Amino acid sequence: MATAALKVAVIGGGSSYTPELVEGLIRHHHEFPIQELYLVDIEEGRQKLELVGALARRMVEKAAVPIRVHLTLNRQEAIHDADFVITQIRVGRLPARVRDERIPLGFDCLGQETTGAGGFAKALRTVPVILDIAQDIQNLAPNAWMINFTNPTGIITEAVLKYGGVKNIGLCNLAIGTRMQIAEMAGVDRALVDFEWVGINHLNWARKIRVGDTDIMPLVWSMLNNAASVKNIPALDWNPVLLKSLGAIPCSYLRYYYMTDEMLRDEKQQARTEGTRGEVVQRIEQELFELYQNPQLAEKPKQLEQRGGAYYSLAAVELIASIYSDRRDVQTVNVRNGHILPFLPADASIEVNAVIDATGAHPIQLELPVPTSMRGLLQVVKAYEELTIEAAVRGDYGLALEALTLHPLVTSGDTAREMLDQILEQNRSLLPRFFA
Amino acid sequence: MATAALKVAVIGGGSSYTPELVEGLIRHHHEFPIQELYLVDIEEGRQKLELVGALARRMVEKAAVPIRVHLTLNRQEAIHDADFVITQIRVGRLPARVRDERIPLGFDCLGQETTGAGGFAKALRTVPVILDIAQDIQNLAPNAWMINFTNPTGIITEAVLKYGGVKNIGLCNLAIGTRMQIAEMAGVDRALVDFEWVGINHLNWARKIRVGDTDIMPLVWSMLNNAASVKNIPALDWNPVLLKSLGAIPCSYLRYYYMTDEMLRDEKQQARTEGTRGEVVQRIEQELFELYQNPQLAEKPKQLEQRGGAYYSLAAVELIASIYSDRRDVQTVNVRNGHILPFLPADASIEVNAVIDATGAHPIQLELPVPTSMRGLLQVVKAYEELTIEAAVRGDYGLALEALTLHPLVTSGDTAREMLDQILEQNRSLLPRFFA
Amino acid sequence: MATAALKVAVIGGGSSYTPELVEGLIRHHHEFPIQELYLVDIEEGRQKLELVGALARRMVEKAAVPIRVHLTLNRQEAIHDADFVITQIRVGRLPARVRDERIPLGFDCLGQETTGAGGFAKALRTVPVILDIAQDIQNLAPNAWMINFTNPTGIITEAVLKYGGVKNIGLCNLAIGTRMQIAEMAGVDRALVDFEWVGINHLNWARKIRVGDTDIMPLVWSMLNNAASVKNIPALDWNPVLLKSLGAIPCSYLRYYYMTDEMLRDEKQQARTEGTRGEVVQRIEQELFELYQNPQLAEKPKQLEQRGGAYYSLAAVELIASIYSDRRDVQTVNVRNGHILPFLPADASIEVNAVIDATGAHPIQLELPVPTSMRGLLQVVKAYEELTIEAAVRGDYGLALEALTLHPLVTSGDTAREMLDQILEQNRSLLPRFFA
Amino acid sequence: MATAALKVAVIGGGSSYTPELVEGLIRHHHEFPIQELYLVDIEEGRQKLELVGALARRMVEKAAVPIRVHLTLNRQEAIHDADFVITQIRVGRLPARVRDERIPLGFDCLGQETTGAGGFAKALRTVPVILDIAQDIQNLAPNAWMINFTNPTGIITEAVLKYGGVKNIGLCNLAIGTRMQIAEMAGVDRALVDFEWVGINHLNWARKIRVGDTDIMPLVWSMLNNAASVKNIPALDWNPVLLKSLGAIPCSYLRYYYMTDEMLRDEKQQARTEGTRGEVVQRIEQELFELYQNPQLAEKPKQLEQRGGAYYSLAAVELIASIYSDRRDVQTVNVRNGHILPFLPADASIEVNAVIDATGAHPIQLELPVPTSMRGLLQVVKAYEELTIEAAVRGDYGLALEALTLHPLVTSGDTAREMLDQILEQNRSLLPRFFA
Repeated sequence: MATAALKVAVIGGGSSYTPELVEGLIRHHHEFPIQELYLVDIEEGRQKLELVGALARRMVEKAAVPIRVHLTLNRQEAIHDADFVITQIRVGRLPARVRDERIPLGFDCLGQETTGAGGFAKALRTVPVILDIAQDIQNLAPNAWMINFTNPTGIITEAVLKYGGVKNIGLCNLAIGTRMQIAEMAGVDRALVDFEWVGINHLNWARKIRVGDTDIMPLVWSMLNNAASVKNIPALDWNPVLLKSLGAIPCSYLRYYYMTDEMLRDEKQQARTEGTRGEVVQRIEQELFELYQNPQLAEKPKQLEQRGGAYYSLAAVELIASIYSDRRDVQTVNVRNGHILPFLPADASIEVNAVIDATGAHPIQLELPVPTSMRGLLQVVKAYEELTIEAAVRGDYGLALEALTLHPLVTSGDTAREMLDQILEQNRSLLPRFFA
Repeated sequence: MATAALKVAVIGGGSSYTPELVEGLIRHHHEFPIQELYLVDIEEGRQKLELVGALARRMVEKAAVPIRVHLTLNRQEAIHDADFVITQIRVGRLPARVRDERIPLGFDCLGQETTGAGGFAKALRTVPVILDIAQDIQNLAPNAWMINFTNPTGIITEAVLKYGGVKNIGLCNLAIGTRMQIAEMAGVDRALVDFEWVGINHLNWARKIRVGDTDIMPLVWSMLNNAASVKNIPALDWNPVLLKSLGAIPCSYLRYYYMTDEMLRDEKQQARTEGTRGEVVQRIEQELFELYQNPQLAEKPKQLEQRGGAYYSLAAVELIASIYSDRRDVQTVNVRNGHILPFLPADASIEVNAVIDATGAHPIQLELPVPTSMRGLLQVVKAYEELTIEAAVRGDYGLALEALTLHPLVTSGDTAREMLDQILEQNRSLLPRFFA
Repeated sequence: MATAALKVAVIGGGSSYTPELVEGLIRHHHEFPIQELYLVDIEEGRQKLELVGALARRMVEKAAVPIRVHLTLNRQEAIHDADFVITQIRVGRLPARVRDERIPLGFDCLGQETTGAGGFAKALRTVPVILDIAQDIQNLAPNAWMINFTNPTGIITEAVLKYGGVKNIGLCNLAIGTRMQIAEMAGVDRALVDFEWVGINHLNWARKIRVGDTDIMPLVWSMLNNAASVKNIPALDWNPVLLKSLGAIPCSYLRYYYMTDEMLRDEKQQARTEGTRGEVVQRIEQELFELYQNPQLAEKPKQLEQRGGAYYSLAAVELIASIYSDRRDVQTVNVRNGHILPFLPADASIEVNAVIDATGAHPIQLELPVPTSMRGLLQVVKAYEELTIEAAVRGDYGLALEALTLHPLVTSGDTAREMLDQILEQNRSLLPRFFA
Repeated sequence: MATAALKVAVIGGGSSYTPELVEGLIRHHHEFPIQELYLVDIEEGRQKLELVGALARRMVEKAAVPIRVHLTLNRQEAIHDADFVITQIRVGRLPARVRDERIPLGFDCLGQETTGAGGFAKALRTVPVILDIAQDIQNLAPNAWMINFTNPTGIITEAVLKYGGVKNIGLCNLAIGTRMQIAEMAGVDRALVDFEWVGINHLNWARKIRVGDTDIMPLVWSMLNNAASVKNIPALDWNPVLLKSLGAIPCSYLRYYYMTDEMLRDEKQQARTEGTRGEVVQRIEQELFELYQNPQLAEKPKQLEQRGGAYYSLAAVELIASIYSDRRDVQTVNVRNGHILPFLPADASIEVNAVIDATGAHPIQLELPVPTSMRGLLQVVKAYEELTIEAAVRGDYGLALEALTLHPLVTSGDTAREMLDQILEQNRSLLPRFFA
């Protein structure tokens, strides 16, 4: 990558996650010698941007790496001639997340930021904004890579693949976290662990888990109740018969499908007591920003781990360093399907292992066919995602209704309609394409 | 079809439906000159067989057509050298149906004979018996056509396509009934109405509804709340926005998916009051068999219409007459998919329009792609059906659990497991492959 | 088809074939009550148009059917509000055909009107003209059906499917002729004979040949050396081992592939003696037009049979009558592939059995997979056809070179280049897109 | 790979190539610490085995690496518990190769060891022997990797994938050689050059040729007349228009398709003068074995380069070392297609880039669709290969005839039959399945 001064723009730079990312950029500076780091936010996020930006500058200074940190509300300035544009936005901020969680609960349906009706609402708000950012990249930095961390990552990545016209990879920290946990369980170095990662974002399974050519699936199964769980999802016991029949380890988000009733009970209980996850996060963020204000702080605070984005910066920096260095290693990313999962549309986004080189991410063919029950679930959720993207892009009520009616976690078409009406009503100012 | 004396065997011949079929065979005798009609049943059905058989003989005699009616408990004798074998069995009889309906209701899930967990239980019981019948046909009448009316027809047909080794077409009266209703609505002869029938058994949509090259979809939409409803499904108002967005008319069974909550409420209410559909049918059947006993009765009694199988004999006789006469007309049947619905496995059964000739049913390519939300629903339900067939054939608990967990009308994986355990327990004597 | 006065336009109406077509329109007038018949030609064809048109009028008058025959050089007038537009044009007329035959022979390659480099040259000339006609139809008769008889029919039909934007079916007389011959061989009525027709235009095989459910393939094989031959292809003995291995009867054009050397020897011999087929046809046409001049002649002259288009009018009239009457019978036509031949692109044209109704031609799924050697030949020739269409549409030399290099009957890439240069040079005035 | 003592068996160990392989095993011993090297040959090859084996031992001794070299005629002993089995056999030895070259020339068709009718004959002889070896591996070393270098590699690999039941990768030195040449042209290290390798063995194209993210295609095109040529194929000028239209660099074997006439002239000329390539190789081998006899020689002699297998040992050792070390790097190999080339059967062998790890070779999805003319040629040649495998496995004359008739380099079906009869007759003792 022949570039004068390596430039990265972070859209949503005022996020509480940003210190995590900055730490990664510092630690891997020898592999990825970034010079210009633009943190961008919108007017409503100015204060957070300034706090986070100041911390970022202190971190860079303490580490003595030659990164210049720029803070701006001017997205075009940040994107102009960038090499990488990282998107980590939250349209409507945390209050919208809380609504996404509470509306479905009102219908006895799961309310979650990325899965089910909550993720649907988030997607409707986010897709148009992300496509605007893609348009800026097309205009101002056509050779840049867009690296997307914004949830629901699978939908957002697919929207950009279909309508964005820019080079685009979607990232999630779930695969890298799973690799870490398994390495720890198996007591080996992370680099020695490998698996096939099958599925789409937040709906995937690890299989062929191995160290060298030794199958360690039995070991993992025996320890699996703690495997692959993430901060915002309660750990429940997997049904061992189901897992052995699947021949795989489900990601933690599959609890929403495989243990729907229990998860719903937990969510409702939590909503009544400490609040929904979004409400909890609001409190955590408040604490984090108080910490960030401390002018002595020049490193990522320990408390950020509670926020839920473990390994986020590792995933991001490994990806961009491999593109930068044409490294041709294997990473787990969200990319265009092609024929890797031949039972999904070619232009769908999927989350699988891929070779990363200077020209992007090239998914690797799976070794074995995908079992029927994984296939069926992936197909129906992907169809829901396609409908959601079309609904968001066109502002089409009928397609939105079809999307929500089809979602396996929405229990009925009638419920879908009522829920949709509430979602539209409560997000009216954030959904201009529906209320033009 | 060069055959000395046209022979038809009806497995499950003691069914209360049989007079309907016999009436059709009499009425179309000029097109399909059947000579030997074998009605077969099992020991438990002997009394019903004798009543129905006596009525059939009176009907034939009155009509003065040269059909010889044979009653037998010896299935092999009936199948030997038959030209057509019609299967209309009910393994476990109506008491099993009532259990299929009541078990899911206990979990607040829809309980229905063919759709959801009820159809799942029925499939587990029926698939092995149907494959036994197919084995008899292979041995004793390898050139015979197996015409299957046994529910869940889609699953049964697919099981025979995959494991039966005989020529096999699955039939349902839903398409022919829809055609009748639309013709009546439009005020034209049935032969002038045409549509594309898209989907799988009991999960399908009519589109491109037309008379000649005139699109009559708007007319049908305007009248649709009564369209395509069948005896055992309550009529509820379709959501017109959903239907216009789909661009199609859903079959009545889609109410279970599009209006799940209301349907569940209705079913529970009905179960508390007049009883489940199976319980109602038990009473209807009792009345019918009382009528059948009347030695003066020599025609199909009017009351049979309440039983729910309207147009059943028309569908059957049109199909076998077209095969017999190499007629090459278009009918709606359940056949091997191939690539007609390219998003389903090639060896799946689908329900679509097909050309019927002496070599069987040849499905016709659809004119337009199938919309995303139809596709997603078909894919997930078909995956459930594949798993159910494999579970039934192998007696595999894990696959049965995967099947039920995947079904969109089973609300959670945990519920699936509990429901599965009840289904297995309550059907123990009828599921030898699970309790070997 | 609700139309005030049924109108048909024949583009290339001055063709010597036209009396054949007119005879068919007269004979089937009860099924297809055409009122306005427009015969269109270009200035260079004015004389032929007048001769043919006068004969057509005498035929109509003698038959006393209410068809008005219009002669015009104004294509738009003819197309305006037409119900059917039949295209039977020859861009560059017979002298161009003779060049198409002689150029390849100069390179020791087969020179034939539709197959090989000759068909390639004809396609380059014809595709843009056909797309102009399609444009007129779009503008002036958007509901009209375009029925194409212009060779190479497969390429022309595919070009219109891809770029024409009109309802379009391609026709060839080969399938109907084969059906006739087999019926004659088997001594049964044509309606009783059926087969699966597999392939693309002029590259297809008949299999599953049957009368009712009786396989008559052995009978046909035993008589096959005369089967399916057409006027302009010499009859050579098929290799019986090859045919049994294929399990099918090849169409006569497959002699160019299966007996290339002999066919080439024959063509070269013929070119040296009586002249190429185009030169022979020039003489036949001269004789025909002399006959047509006879004001006493009021029917299709016997001598037209030598011209080579047997059953042409039967094929055309059966097709348009079935569309007109929503007849839903099965005919063999050139249509969009979809997934009927799943190893060819979905947007390719193929020639197979299809149900014909008021909304067009709906291909029927094949019963058995296509054997490997048929598949391989179809794939390479279809790829050549796709390249030819793209080359013709864009006037792209590189694509034209790729097309000709790929064609199995062009023996080398070097030869392809030299031949291409001669073709372009000798057709310069007829290839404006290449010489813009 | 947990193995006590790393064991490699080389079937066809008496080949003149073996010193090349041994040199590689010595040079990379730190990456792949082989301990037991079994060189196996048949009775007729005993003398060559002894000469080559003695040289191998001197090489190992001189290099002071702890490899034990075993010479044996007992294939089972060599395969027993091997970790890798390398196959480099030549059934019928060089005299059969010369016949493969001379028979087609007698029909004015290209006669070449792997391409066209020559490769066809070689495949018929070799497939059954390779499947015997696979059977030994199944029985005696079921976890071993079979690494196949035997030509025609694509066909042999596919036969093993379909019928061998062992872990199997096919190798060719063409891709690694191309990478070397391009690196040299571009003046950069080999590791910096990358490209997409598209196709099947000996019928492939390099595209997306790059250094980092810099496209160096224009540079390569400007130098391409020498690119990718191999010892046994004369260098002829590529047509630059064709190549630019393809957007790729063809491998040297594509000269047989793109310059058929010139290649045939060259071959015939060569056959008349210095002899066919097989005859030349016979002389080279004689010289090599004279050199090998020299007890002072303890390294690969310079003259081996004339033999034609440049980079053979590099390709082999890189592959087995990556499997051994679970290295997850990208190499170009022959593997099962799956859906990488979606227009070829899933069970076809293809030659593409793949990630190599301890569980084998995992092909990487292509970035861009394959252009139409590449696709068409690949499809027809792959169909020929499938037919050839079936013919070889079953000893089926009809399929053999279909295969040869379909091959683009066999000019006619009639020629195919005559050539097939000569091939069978002249290989009678080597084709037991055809003469059982």
